[in-house]
Amino acid sequence: MKKSLLVLALLFSLATFSQSPVDKSFPPEELFALGSYYYPEQWDSSQWERDLKKMSEMGIKFTHFAEFAWAMMEPEEGKYDFEWLDRAVSLAEKYGLKVIMCTPTPTPPTWLSKKYPDILIQRDNGVAIQHGRRQHASWSSDRYRRYVENIVSRLAMRYGNHPAVIGWQIDNEPGHYGVVDYSENAQLKFRVWLQKKYGTIDKLNDTWGTSFWSETYQDFDQVRLPSQQEVPDKPNPHAMLDLNRFMADELAGFVNMQADILRQHINKDQWITTNLIPVFNPVDPVRIDHTDFLTYTRYLVTGHNQGIGSQGFRMGIPEDLGFSNDQFRNRVGKTFGVMELQPGQVNWGVYNPQPLPGAVRMWVYHVFAGGGKFVCNYRFRQPLKGSEQYHYGMIMTDGVTLSPGGEEYVCIAQEMKKLRAAYDKKNRMPKQLASRRIGLLFDMNNYWEMEFQRQTDQWWTMPHIHKYYNLLKSFAAPVDVISEKEDFSGYPFLIAPAYQLLDNNLVERWTEYVKNGGHLI
Amino acid sequence: MKKSLLVLALLFSLATFSQSPVDKSFPPEELFALGSYYYPEQWDSSQWERDLKKMSEMGIKFTHFAEFAWAMMEPEEGKYDFEWLDRAVSLAEKYGLKVIMCTPTPTPPTWLSKKYPDILIQRDNGVAIQHGRRQHASWSSDRYRRYVENIVSRLAMRYGNHPAVIGWQIDNEPGHYGVVDYSENAQLKFRVWLQKKYGTIDKLNDTWGTSFWSETYQDFDQVRLPSQQEVPDKPNPHAMLDLNRFMADELAGFVNMQADILRQHINKDQWITTNLIPVFNPVDPVRIDHTDFLTYTRYLVTGHNQGIGSQGFRMGIPEDLGFSNDQFRNRVGKTFGVMELQPGQVNWGVYNPQPLPGAVRMWVYHVFAGGGKFVCNYRFRQPLKGSEQYHYGMIMTDGVTLSPGGEEYVCIAQEMKKLRAAYDKKNRMPKQLASRRIGLLFDMNNYWEMEFQRQTDQWWTMPHIHKYYNLLKSFAAPVDVISEKEDFSGYPFLIAPAYQLLDNNLVERWTEYVKNGGHLI
Amino acid sequence: MKKSLLVLALLFSLATFSQSPVDKSFPPEELFALGSYYYPEQWDSSQWERDLKKMSEMGIKFTHFAEFAWAMMEPEEGKYDFEWLDRAVSLAEKYGLKVIMCTPTPTPPTWLSKKYPDILIQRDNGVAIQHGRRQHASWSSDRYRRYVENIVSRLAMRYGNHPAVIGWQIDNEPGHYGVVDYSENAQLKFRVWLQKKYGTIDKLNDTWGTSFWSETYQDFDQVRLPSQQEVPDKPNPHAMLDLNRFMADELAGFVNMQADILRQHINKDQWITTNLIPVFNPVDPVRIDHTDFLTYTRYLVTGHNQGIGSQGFRMGIPEDLGFSNDQFRNRVGKTFGVMELQPGQVNWGVYNPQPLPGAVRMWVYHVFAGGGKFVCNYRFRQPLKGSEQYHYGMIMTDGVTLSPGGEEYVCIAQEMKKLRAAYDKKNRMPKQLASRRIGLLFDMNNYWEMEFQRQTDQWWTMPHIHKYYNLLKSFAAPVDVISEKEDFSGYPFLIAPAYQLLDNNLVERWTEYVKNGGHLI
Repeated sequence: MKKSLLVLALLFSLATFSQSPVDKSFPPEELFALGSYYYPEQWDSSQWERDLKKMSEMGIKFTHFAEFAWAMMEPEEGKYDFEWLDRAVSLAEKYGLKVIMCTPTPTPPTWLSKKYPDILIQRDNGVAIQHGRRQHASWSSDRYRRYVENIVSRLAMRYGNHPAVIGWQIDNEPGHYGVVDYSENAQLKFRVWLQKKYGTIDKLNDTWGTSFWSETYQDFDQVRLPSQQEVPDKPNPHAMLDLNRFMADELAGFVNMQADILRQHINKDQWITTNLIPVFNPVDPVRIDHTDFLTYTRYLVTGHNQGIGSQGFRMGIPEDLGFSNDQFRNRVGKTFGVMELQPGQVNWGVYNPQPLPGAVRMWVYHVFAGGGKFVCNYRFRQPLKGSEQYHYGMIMTDGVTLSPGGEEYVCIAQEMKKLRAAYDKKNRMPKQLASRRIGLLFDMNNYWEMEFQRQTDQWWTMPHIHKYYNLLKSFAAPVDVISEKEDFSGYPFLIAPAYQLLDNNLVERWTEYVKNGGHLI
Repeated sequence: MKKSLLVLALLFSLATFSQSPVDKSFPPEELFALGSYYYPEQWDSSQWERDLKKMSEMGIKFTHFAEFAWAMMEPEEGKYDFEWLDRAVSLAEKYGLKVIMCTPTPTPPTWLSKKYPDILIQRDNGVAIQHGRRQHASWSSDRYRRYVENIVSRLAMRYGNHPAVIGWQIDNEPGHYGVVDYSENAQLKFRVWLQKKYGTIDKLNDTWGTSFWSETYQDFDQVRLPSQQEVPDKPNPHAMLDLNRFMADELAGFVNMQADILRQHINKDQWITTNLIPVFNPVDPVRIDHTDFLTYTRYLVTGHNQGIGSQGFRMGIPEDLGFSNDQFRNRVGKTFGVMELQPGQVNWGVYNPQPLPGAVRMWVYHVFAGGGKFVCNYRFRQPLKGSEQYHYGMIMTDGVTLSPGGEEYVCIAQEMKKLRAAYDKKNRMPKQLASRRIGLLFDMNNYWEMEFQRQTDQWWTMPHIHKYYNLLKSFAAPVDVISEKEDFSGYPFLIAPAYQLLDNNLVERWTEYVKNGGHLI
Repeated sequence: MKKSLLVLALLFSLATFSQSPVDKSFPPEELFALGSYYYPEQWDSSQWERDLKKMSEMGIKFTHFAEFAWAMMEPEEGKYDFEWLDRAVSLAEKYGLKVIMCTPTPTPPTWLSKKYPDILIQRDNGVAIQHGRRQHASWSSDRYRRYVENIVSRLAMRYGNHPAVIGWQIDNEPGHYGVVDYSENAQLKFRVWLQKKYGTIDKLNDTWGTSFWSETYQDFDQVRLPSQQEVPDKPNPHAMLDLNRFMADELAGFVNMQADILRQHINKDQWITTNLIPVFNPVDPVRIDHTDFLTYTRYLVTGHNQGIGSQGFRMGIPEDLGFSNDQFRNRVGKTFGVMELQPGQVNWGVYNPQPLPGAVRMWVYHVFAGGGKFVCNYRFRQPLKGSEQYHYGMIMTDGVTLSPGGEEYVCIAQEMKKLRAAYDKKNRMPKQLASRRIGLLFDMNNYWEMEFQRQTDQWWTMPHIHKYYNLLKSFAAPVDVISEKEDFSGYPFLIAPAYQLLDNNLVERWTEYVKNGGHLI
């Protein structure tokens, strides 16, 4: 009896151990959580308590700190200040808010960029990006990575066991705004990357087809990152494909490295993620796999598309959320959240419409329905100055009035309470629906190839893929957007739209798939 | 009796003294004067007399010399030649033409740019603007200012008491064609400017909202002129606003400095002005206040707008003159002239239409009606070569035939004679009309802010402001376009369209204004 | 009798000697020849024989080798390898194919660019074009010209007497893709060119109209190539005209120099040509006169124009061939061929349509009808990798299947056989038609002037000229597109559309022409 009790106890503890930190933060029975970005460093410290209390009262479960606060944490080299952040975390805790703590690596402090200008990225025209905004430090700089390692370790040690901190976000929307980094550091790392990939220069020559136009390289040291500025015509397409892969690997390596550092210091109940812009160069979510799961960020109404109908520009297009849900749910950890979602107008769009009343709520439910664990809306308060002066928050500029989007969040929080009462852990997707599950093959490698070697100026890769996707959704079919890494043999249907980049292996897998009764479209 | 005669004599002489040099040049009873640009340096000296005689015969009262002639004045460093200019001035005098003498500071001679390349402005991509055109020298270069001081002093000493010279124009359309100067000189001066404005770096950080994105500066030496090339996204909006203010101050300082130099050498009967492009970065007329009055330049038909009706592109839009009249009339000296007005097609427009017959005459009367003292048309002769080879003058390429625009000037000159006969110095604006006078608040600071922080790509600041302006003019209301510097308490109506940049002081003034019965729109 | 036999023999040999190498390659009785581009260096050498055999069987008379193969010929400095090319030429010979041998000077090998970066061209923003594509070496580099001289001499010595080699092509579509070379070498050569043209700096100043804006130069050393990046406004128009002339002279000098080298080594039966993009900066065919004749390259369907009718984008516009035929037929040697013509879709267009069935055949006959000696289609095989991965050939990617365009070439080859049977050497153009022959004056100098000094954004020089041309062709008039170099006195009609750049000499010639009964339009 004792023995069986022991066994039982062991089973229980195993069960506890086997419960992932993600599930602990977002238990299935709670269905869905709401969070909100808060920047203590942007506000007078006398307002923090009022703000966090308000956030909690609105039904928000967690807040999000510090992804841009390196200058506050390390105002001078080697001089650290975490007390302000301690206080902010304590205040959050006081009002029952959990905290996502972020590494501040998109924004090195001024002293770092000024002391070591070699850490900065460089444009194709030779201009070095300077301090003054964000995302200006090179992932390829060993020096920068050392500074990153230091600040991330210190942050991890300080908050790696804090009970209010449920998890970590690495960096913020890494991507350099799509600017390709042509710094000397990147040039060197590209050569190392090529050498590792190809082994010999002959193999690179063969793969890049350099026998045409005497492009033939004799040595890896002769290769430069292909650049539209540095050649009179378009660069070599295979070199461009490798550039995109290299950039994505540098980005992924930068995030994975930080994940590894965090793991050394944080406890088992804290998870690690990052937030990514979906289908945005040079981001390849497949390559980021040291985190527990991934999140994405999405701004639905920014004037970049007209949507459907005369007010569509105030609602956004459904695939902007649907496709991302179905893609990110199939990445590392097989779950996801949405880390940024606008509660109102942004300030940086082509034009900045107010979301249609109800649109914010619709978006949140769209994420919920797509299997997301949470939405962390961006941002709690509209700032009074700085880059986002005209970017709406859940709270207006006075610090107390709810914005229309804020009102919708309050409404969602209340609805969620009711929905939780109806939670039945035995519920599963109806068989009829599950049996329609369709795999949609989408791989960034192919995307890069299609985008660079477009055969007409009337071709747009994503709108084309979305045509298939939207058609499937109109049949109410569950879709998984999967990469080539995944096993697709279990799907009754596999769609591979606009696939220009193929290797023998994929052809074999497709052949096998079809032989076994799969439907490949 | 002797005593009272003395008093009377004194009164007369006081009256004489109190008559401004501007009124002396442009006496009210003469209503309005016509001038024309002439470039002796562009023509064989044997033609000067013929040309100036012709100009005089056409009814032109003054000509305009030397704003681009530094290379003729100082062909080598320290070697001066003013004899050609002496001769040109004498010939003008011989035919009864007065002269506006200009400082040649938009066009440093080759030897200066080649000897000291540090005087050149620099693009945001790092390319230094070279000798070869005009406006390539930096207002922020102390070295350039020393050379400017030298040539301006010499010119002032030579012509500062010449009876034919009625006044001075400083530089020409200063503005660097809108190119922002990122030279090292400008970077240094920007830091000095910021230090003077903010005192401490903390104040700058607070004002620019640098707590976001770790933009926080530790020292003024770390700050650079914000540049779209040097950041991956848009620059900080407050830094951009300060950049625009700084550039406008550098420009104004450059002009004011020259005015101060001129004053040391010229006599009391000569006035000082400059010619500005209205509402053009980085020109802020409010900051240029060491001159006696300002003038503006305006090209009505250049293909940049379609005007009204099918032939509108050959007439221009009325606000291009009206708004500028109402703005420049309210600047330093409370009067203005138009220093450049095309007599025919230009060569540098989007397309270069011929003005509709009668349009040139209409424009001149528009300036006259708007309170201007004169129009100095640009230019007397169409050149046979160089940058303006296809730019019409009052005289065609053969040097003797009047262009259609030239014919219209002859007509205007004759009409003016008749109008002068009807001059009655007691005439004032009818009370009913004067009582409708409306203040329209327009400030470049707000304009810069609106333009940089546009909330939609469908927003255009000036067309919006012009909507108000044109509506007011359609009511035949006299409008004063005033800046925040002016006292607006006396206007029954005050319009402040699209005002995004406010401070407490302005809010208080508006409140007070409305309390006192003013109508603020 | 012996004597007269001797005379007869002498006459025959004279006739043989007087027959040009061009006529030997393309005898009038054969009417027209077909050729095709082949790149042995792009394919496994085991496929060469199969490919060249196939080419011959399709009715192709000659192939085209080596214009991009410098890296294969001289893989390291001073280490040469022509054996692969020997073998390719032998295989061509084996299957009765003649060979056009090319100088590989558009594509210096990597080692050359890396060892001497000063040979590279430079953009106006200061970025040096790097190895990685083609056309990156400066015509103005003496160093590069020395390396060119070496490789061209060696090539000429090796194949200058090869019976299969009928002629030589110099470089390939020289033109730097329209990128103006602002390298230091070009700057220096521009000054030399100016000094040679003007003699004294005063003459340059006078011609460029530098008295305006104090542009006046004191010395040739102060002059730089005019650059839009280096001036705030547009550069001086006369400097721009000289820049275009200089660039065209550098290009022509580069080609003429190579022709002179070739002549030293090749036998009298081999001719020399180059292939030019028609009406493309900085190409002026008139200046290239050391070759035996010129050829042009033309891609009819690339999405750059819509053509006529709903399927016009798949046929191209007739003047693209007609105007070029009539222009190139009147250049050096008074004959021409078309060196590149697409057999199917290209990969680099705005969009890349498939030519309409029959279009390829139509184009070839259009060249034939226009007096061309041959069409050399670009290219035999569609490549599997590299820059032209999606560029169609006569043969598809599998190396054996004919593309639709390939099929049309087979058809043309068979039709030509039948047409040759009907050849009658006494046939001439009917008198009635010949008497309508019209001269159309087209000069690149005027073209450059018109393009740079456009008076409206709605002006396009070539479409305007084509209006005249197409109208003439609609009357079935034979047109010669001639330059100012040619004597036009014999034409009953002379059209000079949109002539902005005139000198006294041309005016006199026109006057004389009209006096003598010519009709000048």
